[in-house]
Amino acid sequence: MRFLDKLKKCISKNNSLLCIGLDPNLNKLPHIFPREKKSILEFNCSIIETTYDVVCAYKLNSAFYEALGARGFEILKKTIENIPDEIPVILDAKRGDITSSVEMYAQSVFVEFGADAVTFNPYFGVETIEPFIQFDDKFVFVVVLSSNQGAFDFQYLRCGDKFLFQIIAEKFLGEKFANVGFVVGATRGEDISLVRNLSDEKLFLIPGIGVQKGDLEIALRYGINRDKICLINVGREIIYASDSGDFKQKVRLKAIEFRDKINKIVERL
Amino acid sequence: MRFLDKLKKCISKNNSLLCIGLDPNLNKLPHIFPREKKSILEFNCSIIETTYDVVCAYKLNSAFYEALGARGFEILKKTIENIPDEIPVILDAKRGDITSSVEMYAQSVFVEFGADAVTFNPYFGVETIEPFIQFDDKFVFVVVLSSNQGAFDFQYLRCGDKFLFQIIAEKFLGEKFANVGFVVGATRGEDISLVRNLSDEKLFLIPGIGVQKGDLEIALRYGINRDKICLINVGREIIYASDSGDFKQKVRLKAIEFRDKINKIVERL
Repeated sequence: MRFLDKLKKCISKNNSLLCIGLDPNLNKLPHIFPREKKSILEFNCSIIETTYDVVCAYKLNSAFYEALGARGFEILKKTIENIPDEIPVILDAKRGDITSSVEMYAQSVFVEFGADAVTFNPYFGVETIEPFIQFDDKFVFVVVLSSNQGAFDFQYLRCGDKFLFQIIAEKFLGEKFANVGFVVGATRGEDISLVRNLSDEKLFLIPGIGVQKGDLEIALRYGINRDKICLINVGREIIYASDSGDFKQKVRLKAIEFRDKINKIVERL
Repeated sequence: MRFLDKLKKCISKNNSLLCIGLDPNLNKLPHIFPREKKSILEFNCSIIETTYDVVCAYKLNSAFYEALGARGFEILKKTIENIPDEIPVILDAKRGDITSSVEMYAQSVFVEFGADAVTFNPYFGVETIEPFIQFDDKFVFVVVLSSNQGAFDFQYLRCGDKFLFQIIAEKFLGEKFANVGFVVGATRGEDISLVRNLSDEKLFLIPGIGVQKGDLEIALRYGINRDKICLINVGREIIYASDSGDFKQKVRLKAIEFRDKINKIVERL
């Protein structure tokens, strides 16, 4: 099944636009888990078990697995295998390189690790997304506007009468890029509209809610497309909801709280 | 030992500015190697064995290892372990993300995999390089100008009176970024001077020679710094120098040929 169909099915089944960020940090694991690498898989599986019917997708940031060395990639693979088939998996790897290298990344992300979607860094140019989009049942999110302060350094540079991020986003519009969406940080507030104005169709993946304090209401106002969908990613605030024995319950409650908060705002839009 | 000292020592010991790109592709392995994942390590070790006294560094493109899945990272780690300690290892991972994720990448590249240097994608902003440069015996190459056609899409955008890539490079000058160099593609020809003009000190890592047909003479003219050093990376043209039993000899001859060609040009500059 194509990514967008799979996602829409999951959104409607779970009545949720919430994407949980499975970005486990060994130093932040709840104390009920022994502080060793193999606990990470158990931690991830617990979160999946307690939230799989509350989310529309999971996003795994590759960096957090790579920090565990070669072992981390086994954990990454096993985590993905433990996510129910009907839930889309986004590997947040922010890969970008010349085309011959991106071919290798596509093989890695989509074939070896079996993710449904990937995040892509556009600095190497438009052509370099090709190896990813050649997998036509998969999906690619181009990083357009990031959620950090550093976004202002280059993404907001003025190139003629536009910001750099607008020029980049414009290059990935149209039929050829039907399976391409955008990463737009919630912390960018009203500026999300500058990307939304380019297309009422594009799917946005929106990080920056929760610990990073992006405004959920503004993010949703410009974040949802004409189908009224987007992906609101929340990581730390959900997965570290509790440090003790009630960990699974607290994670579930926090996820439900976010899901409902999102739905309530979308209803009003 | 600091990266730059280690590199200079190796350059002078082997009288070489040649960096070999260990980017193994299972489909291109010489036929003397069985076409299976574990052959990759053997292939890499053969190349190291036959070239370790001809190079100044090895560059491993992470993409080619990731394409092998979790197993690829073990091969990556073992390959790095098989490189003699006195030869600098660059993990060409083009990582870039928000700072809290780059912390994880730094842990991965420098601690878990033990590389001496990494390549960095600047799109997320200047601040995001911090976790990498906090390892002060390590080194970071910021991708400024890539070797592919796609470089023209965004890197050459006009921002005021400068190209985007110039504005990016300018942000990584000065004492704070003493352990930061630039990736500049040999295929960019005379434009390399636009980066060199910003600093006669910065170390450049220059891919695009060989199969990608960058001009070696022009690359060296603007590529070398005031110490007359830079890193000329050659991958495919050396590592696939032969498909048969004379593989190791041919790889060595090809490496020597490149090293000598580089030296001859530098002497004239």
